[in-house]
Amino acid sequence: MERHFEEELKDLSKELLLMGSLVEGMILKAVQALVSRDDKMAREVREDDLKVDQLQLKIDEMCLTFLALRQPTAVDLRTITSAMKIITDLERMGDQAVNISESAIQENKEAPLSPFPDLPKLAGAVQKMVRGSLDAFVNKNAESAKAVCQSDDNVDDLYHKIFKELLTLMKADIENVSRGLHLILVARNLERIGDHATNIAEDVIYLVEGKDVRHHVEKV
Amino acid sequence: MERHFEEELKDLSKELLLMGSLVEGMILKAVQALVSRDDKMAREVREDDLKVDQLQLKIDEMCLTFLALRQPTAVDLRTITSAMKIITDLERMGDQAVNISESAIQENKEAPLSPFPDLPKLAGAVQKMVRGSLDAFVNKNAESAKAVCQSDDNVDDLYHKIFKELLTLMKADIENVSRGLHLILVARNLERIGDHATNIAEDVIYLVEGKDVRHHVEKV
Repeated sequence: MERHFEEELKDLSKELLLMGSLVEGMILKAVQALVSRDDKMAREVREDDLKVDQLQLKIDEMCLTFLALRQPTAVDLRTITSAMKIITDLERMGDQAVNISESAIQENKEAPLSPFPDLPKLAGAVQKMVRGSLDAFVNKNAESAKAVCQSDDNVDDLYHKIFKELLTLMKADIENVSRGLHLILVARNLERIGDHATNIAEDVIYLVEGKDVRHHVEKV
Repeated sequence: MERHFEEELKDLSKELLLMGSLVEGMILKAVQALVSRDDKMAREVREDDLKVDQLQLKIDEMCLTFLALRQPTAVDLRTITSAMKIITDLERMGDQAVNISESAIQENKEAPLSPFPDLPKLAGAVQKMVRGSLDAFVNKNAESAKAVCQSDDNVDDLYHKIFKELLTLMKADIENVSRGLHLILVARNLERIGDHATNIAEDVIYLVEGKDVRHHVEKV
């Protein structure tokens, strides 16, 4: 059974990483669709989201079956319950990427705002957090997880910088108000994806160190 | 053991409802702090959030202990894993309420926007969804859960109405841009709390009917 457990856990990790890489792709695509004014790419994000949703259901069932049949305890139990939480975060990241892609389709109808905020930089930083948090889970590496939590500060700084830039543009010219507002909401979607990655990283620290940092890191 | 299970589940429900009523209170308080320009009330929301966080950790541990010691299967297993997801949603609703209370403290420094959007109505609708979703879980009532999912449409409509009103005010006068933007973000926080309640309700439907509606209701 021990061997079986390891194999099943490996399968679970594989599916989880697949779900994660799909979500990473959605984040980058959604922002790219906005920057390069590409409606087709924006629509692809919605298609990817269906795959992400299906993977969530599949992994959720794998976890439930595992709990029911293997009745794990201690760290094995926490690994499975963490996986169930992680896929919820991933699924919601996917929803945020869909929101961005819908904003892209709206924004692409109007002339681009100039100067255009550095949303790709924010998206790149957030995508790295997603990757980092999942790698930390699969490798049960608390140090990598802590690095993810720390990089959330950088994401927050980038978000606030973009927020201020856009607010300044909006105040300067009434014509910028609507477009600026939609881009602020896009930046906020990205920032929330960073929060989800932080949630995953905090779960990993709890899993590995048995120490609950969830309500410490957040409050710093 | 059967009797024991029932008792433990009752304890779990009690704690979960306590956490829920704290979160409901936070939502109403945060919006009230904004409307009545009451910084003290806004700060109370942050204090309540600490209690919510502690309850999340406590209930999470209760669930893990239950899984490890009782090794439930079938619907009992799903009840516990659902509870673990529900407290994550509740905790994040609490975070949204804290965001609103922080916006309130910011907004209270400036003259109020006029006409002021009907955020209390949106907050009331959202608070009812939270209550409804938790009652549906505790009573394992799929019909009530479906009613919660349906009322999310009403919340979305209210959100879009407020969004449009504020955007119009912002476009009419550059002086309104900053305050209008912050109120839009508050409305969005409320709308997201509604999404979390919908997530809970969908979990309940899955739990009771064994039918996964999570990726159907959302996509309507």
